[in-house]
Amino acid sequence: MPHIQIDNDLPGIGGLLRQRPDTGGLINTMADALLRGPMSLTPGERELIAAYTSERNETPFCAGSHSAFAAAQLEGGKELVQAVLIDPESAPLTPRIRALIRIAAEVQEPVHVLADETIAAAREAGADDAQIHDTVLVASAFCMINRYVTCLGTDLPESPAYYEEAARRIIGEGYAATLT
Amino acid sequence: MPHIQIDNDLPGIGGLLRQRPDTGGLINTMADALLRGPMSLTPGERELIAAYTSERNETPFCAGSHSAFAAAQLEGGKELVQAVLIDPESAPLTPRIRALIRIAAEVQEPVHVLADETIAAAREAGADDAQIHDTVLVASAFCMINRYVTCLGTDLPESPAYYEEAARRIIGEGYAATLT
Repeated sequence: MPHIQIDNDLPGIGGLLRQRPDTGGLINTMADALLRGPMSLTPGERELIAAYTSERNETPFCAGSHSAFAAAQLEGGKELVQAVLIDPESAPLTPRIRALIRIAAEVQEPVHVLADETIAAAREAGADDAQIHDTVLVASAFCMINRYVTCLGTDLPESPAYYEEAARRIIGEGYAATLT
Repeated sequence: MPHIQIDNDLPGIGGLLRQRPDTGGLINTMADALLRGPMSLTPGERELIAAYTSERNETPFCAGSHSAFAAAQLEGGKELVQAVLIDPESAPLTPRIRALIRIAAEVQEPVHVLADETIAAAREAGADDAQIHDTVLVASAFCMINRYVTCLGTDLPESPAYYEEAARRIIGEGYAATLT
């Protein structure tokens, strides 16, 4: 049961966004910009970083949601995303994306300056400043979102089909539309 | 030296916001809403939560900035803020704010559902659902911002006077105005 009263039956962040449309609008605007707006990484790549960070942060609602959103937008689909969540080192990723996933892993740890080696490896694999920046920013944002969803004890959806239905809605209309 | 090229000499998040006005505008909008907009906690209380979370996340730029912003907006000023950063249990806080600071401390830890006792203690001290929600959201947001600032290896200002000058600007004009 959530730690605060939620007057709707939406699971995960959905209940919080609808309960508090003031901050909910803000969070959806951020999600649309960071995951769907024009940036150096594709929406699928950014959703993969979001799913992976959420998995490491043990937030199943966000890991399930963003895995579905990534799978629907990446060649390789569900199988690829699942392989990354289990072990990015053995998943069939390009060297560039694998190096960016390693950056996300470090961002998820207790806060510290990223190792020079992690950044150098990403550059050697073809990542530029914008991709390094965008990876750090997306992974950081999920260190916020995962805490918001988990700390307040929000509910999980009753069926995993929820995530695939959400994927159709988010990819078709965007995050902000989910509050209207 | 920062991990990505920054074509300006602003320290901390300032350099990142100016380097990337696309995401910088978004982050400043979030800061204005979460720290200065109408919510259940005063701007001074929210800046104190931001400073305390940043101190726990070992991000001196954010701890210094938000300490100055909190001190300028709270009775008790610098001395109170410094006492909270050193030890909130002995700092001269009201029971309600002390209980909310304990919530922020739990949010800063590895991601987990907040303990029932932590929430119950906040309610007993007079906090309502909105204050509990807003504390979790602000502390979570600084688990994002601190990572963004620290992971990318941004510079510290040359003088601590920077933070007091920033306080005048932020309190007078808001976060978004710093990019214009």
